[in-house]
Amino acid sequence: MPRVIFYPFGKEISVPENRTLLEAAQKAGVLVNASCGGKGVCGKCKVILEEGQVDEAEHALLTTKERKENYILACQTRVIEDVRVRVPIELELISKDQTKIQTLITKRDIWNKKLEQIEADGLVNKYFLELPVPSIEDSKSDTSRIKNKLKQIIGNQHQISFEHEIIRNLGDILRDSDYRVTATVHEKNGSAEIVRIEPGNTYMNNYAITVDVGTTSIKAQLIDLNNRRIIEESSDYNSQISYGEDVLSRMVFALKGKGLNILQEKVIDTINGIINRLVEKSGVARNDISHMIAAGNTVMVHILIGVNPKYIRSEPYIPVFKFPPPLKCSDIGIEINNNAPLVIFPSVASYLGADITAGLAAAEFWHQDKLTLYIDIGTNGELVLGNSEWLVGCSCSAGPAFEGGGVKNGLRCATGAIEKVSIDRDTLEVAFQTYGGTLVRGICGSGLIDLMAELFLSGIINGRGKIDLDLDTDRTREGNYGPEFVVAWKEQSESGQDIVITEVDIDNLMRAKAAVYAGITTLVESVGLNIDNIEKVILAGTFGNYIRVKEAVTIGLLPDIDLNKYSFIGNGSLLGSTMAAVNQEYLNKAKEFAEKISYLELSVHSGFMDKYMSALFLPHTDRSLFPSVSVN
Amino acid sequence: MPRVIFYPFGKEISVPENRTLLEAAQKAGVLVNASCGGKGVCGKCKVILEEGQVDEAEHALLTTKERKENYILACQTRVIEDVRVRVPIELELISKDQTKIQTLITKRDIWNKKLEQIEADGLVNKYFLELPVPSIEDSKSDTSRIKNKLKQIIGNQHQISFEHEIIRNLGDILRDSDYRVTATVHEKNGSAEIVRIEPGNTYMNNYAITVDVGTTSIKAQLIDLNNRRIIEESSDYNSQISYGEDVLSRMVFALKGKGLNILQEKVIDTINGIINRLVEKSGVARNDISHMIAAGNTVMVHILIGVNPKYIRSEPYIPVFKFPPPLKCSDIGIEINNNAPLVIFPSVASYLGADITAGLAAAEFWHQDKLTLYIDIGTNGELVLGNSEWLVGCSCSAGPAFEGGGVKNGLRCATGAIEKVSIDRDTLEVAFQTYGGTLVRGICGSGLIDLMAELFLSGIINGRGKIDLDLDTDRTREGNYGPEFVVAWKEQSESGQDIVITEVDIDNLMRAKAAVYAGITTLVESVGLNIDNIEKVILAGTFGNYIRVKEAVTIGLLPDIDLNKYSFIGNGSLLGSTMAAVNQEYLNKAKEFAEKISYLELSVHSGFMDKYMSALFLPHTDRSLFPSVSVN
Repeated sequence: MPRVIFYPFGKEISVPENRTLLEAAQKAGVLVNASCGGKGVCGKCKVILEEGQVDEAEHALLTTKERKENYILACQTRVIEDVRVRVPIELELISKDQTKIQTLITKRDIWNKKLEQIEADGLVNKYFLELPVPSIEDSKSDTSRIKNKLKQIIGNQHQISFEHEIIRNLGDILRDSDYRVTATVHEKNGSAEIVRIEPGNTYMNNYAITVDVGTTSIKAQLIDLNNRRIIEESSDYNSQISYGEDVLSRMVFALKGKGLNILQEKVIDTINGIINRLVEKSGVARNDISHMIAAGNTVMVHILIGVNPKYIRSEPYIPVFKFPPPLKCSDIGIEINNNAPLVIFPSVASYLGADITAGLAAAEFWHQDKLTLYIDIGTNGELVLGNSEWLVGCSCSAGPAFEGGGVKNGLRCATGAIEKVSIDRDTLEVAFQTYGGTLVRGICGSGLIDLMAELFLSGIINGRGKIDLDLDTDRTREGNYGPEFVVAWKEQSESGQDIVITEVDIDNLMRAKAAVYAGITTLVESVGLNIDNIEKVILAGTFGNYIRVKEAVTIGLLPDIDLNKYSFIGNGSLLGSTMAAVNQEYLNKAKEFAEKISYLELSVHSGFMDKYMSALFLPHTDRSLFPSVSVN
Repeated sequence: MPRVIFYPFGKEISVPENRTLLEAAQKAGVLVNASCGGKGVCGKCKVILEEGQVDEAEHALLTTKERKENYILACQTRVIEDVRVRVPIELELISKDQTKIQTLITKRDIWNKKLEQIEADGLVNKYFLELPVPSIEDSKSDTSRIKNKLKQIIGNQHQISFEHEIIRNLGDILRDSDYRVTATVHEKNGSAEIVRIEPGNTYMNNYAITVDVGTTSIKAQLIDLNNRRIIEESSDYNSQISYGEDVLSRMVFALKGKGLNILQEKVIDTINGIINRLVEKSGVARNDISHMIAAGNTVMVHILIGVNPKYIRSEPYIPVFKFPPPLKCSDIGIEINNNAPLVIFPSVASYLGADITAGLAAAEFWHQDKLTLYIDIGTNGELVLGNSEWLVGCSCSAGPAFEGGGVKNGLRCATGAIEKVSIDRDTLEVAFQTYGGTLVRGICGSGLIDLMAELFLSGIINGRGKIDLDLDTDRTREGNYGPEFVVAWKEQSESGQDIVITEVDIDNLMRAKAAVYAGITTLVESVGLNIDNIEKVILAGTFGNYIRVKEAVTIGLLPDIDLNKYSFIGNGSLLGSTMAAVNQEYLNKAKEFAEKISYLELSVHSGFMDKYMSALFLPHTDRSLFPSVSVN
């Protein structure tokens, strides 16, 4: 079998002849971005052939220059002999460089302050029990002895049961510990299942893992439940990513042969990898992690528990479940305590997922008296509007532009990404800032919003997003893909090539922002209100966390209301999970939300398309909606 | 490795040198009775060496005659070369001859009449659901769609959940069946778990297996839940039997290395074998058996679910559990529907088991206004006294005499067992009846009671159980083991040897009956009553089913009260399980009983020993307690 070596990782793998390089990369555990799932349409899986011959299918996704430089598409190239391949810098991003993304997760101190203020009422608790020693007069069974004591502590209202496996050696544990044991108890809805009995008092060793299962990256925290503190956190790219960048391509892949199994395996591998690091870094015993609480979009949650999300894909967009079934971590191979419950937040709809109900819980929507808009923008803009009384929600397909997809030099938030841009109104010169202060590798979502706003405000692009090529600057020019604007010169870039934004990119961004804004107005009007009635806006998600509101208003992505009404919650999906670990009320409220939110299906909603068309302009065709935006 | 062939089965096996013949038999699946668990003390594992040499340990359990006939003890003999061994007639009993024991299980027609009168309220039910087809306007998840419909049928009070595995292909089933499916639902205590979804209407195909897990034999019924009928039944010896005859020797074996695992495997093998036959005979699809309900003594139930019963053995006799944890059949390898719940009745105490709570449920004790005594006599006499208001219970160690143990020609109820005896008061000649009307193989419990009563009434034995050797009959004589009485001459016996009862046998029987009677009186007096207050006696168990009350009263086993107060319930353990399959109230009531029964530990009860000593006489030292018994 021919061998493939991947640089710069140095990973080597043998594959049967005629396998694609993408398959070889997947087999080798080398993450190669394949947004379209290997169909040969996105052109993202470029790699450089350094040695050997391959069999390349016909396609038109590489420029002449790229061809000269031996770029090939991994998904369109079959291995026929030993080859050496280099994964280029742009793609290296998704190799596992932990330190880079690490700092971007959360503001742990702020979160810990939140946790301190929450009353402890965990889902899985530990109780130290000093049991009466049995005698002829007191011949209760071992399990009854424990149940009776536990009832004195947690109250009579619970129906207490024992997990089957743990009673096997219960007799020995009780007698060896002189009837002083610690019970780990999963408490919910009036039932209490004892999932572990340990000798002695181990009451203090109770931890939870909370996980945001994102399509792109997975973020997790290790929570010390007794001290109500996040003691460690870690994250990684969801290694499903090499089977497609977004949920649609994952759903397509899940339909192929063992596709679903592979995707499930990948996400669980990623989570287990994160758990391994958390355990190592914190010194916490794996067995003392008594449960996991997770949230994520509906597709991610389906795949996580091995359920094919195929009917989510097409009308009428039906998920198999919104409320996940009761599960143990070990049912799906997650490696913490063997009897640890796996608790997953409920979804509202196929495209309004558990990440949103967790976020709403984190935002304590049940306390929101004001009319509040919750926005999580990724590939989909997920929107919920309401207050403690009522909620409506929708999902608008924004496309991947804000995540760097469909944008020539787009990049996710990572080192080297331009995240802040300003353009001198006179000289049209560009000032920018990259994550990590390194050479430029691309432009991330917040950078793109800044850039769009600045291009617009400085007159480089007009309301329709067209670049004015007649301006007195060499930054505007006709490029290979039509008109473009040079954001960073090749000297400033890591790849040694100019970093540009093209009209095509701007068009994609325009459609993304129009979808979100049209979603917001449709949602608000569906309940007979208008934009001005919104009293509070909560921005959530990785992207939401780094957005600059003023610029987002300038391009018409966010409504032009008092900027003081805006606030940021960060990763609501993870925060909600973490808060629920400390107090299960956050989960229970999320369940209420999942039942309560009226879901609006925008794709068939009369009026949405008109609103979308009207929003395909900077900031909007109806300028009266954006009074604060004035062009130089 | 040397080979061992077992006749009359023709089974052949290779074993490493120096393994015992008992181990070889166990490995070959040949059931050889080893009451003591292979310790070389019971002398029951006799086999005949027909060919080859063995290495026999020293012991004194075989007579000179037996030695001459090449009898050896399987547990005391090591294999050193190829041998041929014959399992003698007496032991063949416990080979798997189904037809013989089959007829002894139940009076199926009577039971079916009972079932007809019970309102249907099963633990696991099937519901045909015609679901609304999803649309954009009705975009509930697949699981919610099912839950909502189910709530309309079973009511809102249930918290409905889905078993994890079944949601994997739920999407396909719903769409392939045009949203017409049948849900199998496990309903209990306000929760309802959906354990199966089938396409179309299969509502009628819902079956339960009910099982009495006896120490000696396992009896099972297949119940058609829609027609509330027993449609098939089967039984087999519990194949644990070759590791010890009673619960004590099983507990000892469970402590050795993999002992517990082996015993669990054996009982599950036996149950699976029975299930195979039931499935084959009935034509019912294995998958349509939606649950199993079982009862048995506390030790059997512990072993069944893989929990070591070791602390039951010695004071203060503590079981690990009285209420079994929630289980699926597949958790322990029982082969019916993969998600079938396994429901086990609760125990009262280490020696008052689930078989008793099931029996009390079968007897509908919650309707018993009269003071009622429930008696199940096996190796232990298990006794419960009370009415719908209160219950007290105890267990008295009767020893195995009534099951044929410790009695030279004792035999369990099976073909060839003398089950009825009368002795001519003048000629002292014996008339008897065997099960199946065949040649005599031994005497079973009911036969032994008859025999004792007749021996006593005809003056052959006195009140202390001593045989009068001076009578004018050649049936009384001095035998190898002291005085004995010939019940059947060798011409009448299958083995060609006289069938006798010895003074030692009578002594054992005397102690057994004294223990039971002393238990009854202790129990009655513990609540300030006396024997005459008893208004009703229910006899349960295989032995109880065939006992003749008058004779049992004559020997002082049962109290001398109006015979009309006695009734028989048969195998209460199985009947209770079967009734619970039709209506879960029978299980719920059993749980109440298990909580409610005051358990009396006789071994430390002041007064029990005195009562026992007084009862070591025929019928009793206090003749006034047995006014109806008069000796010829």
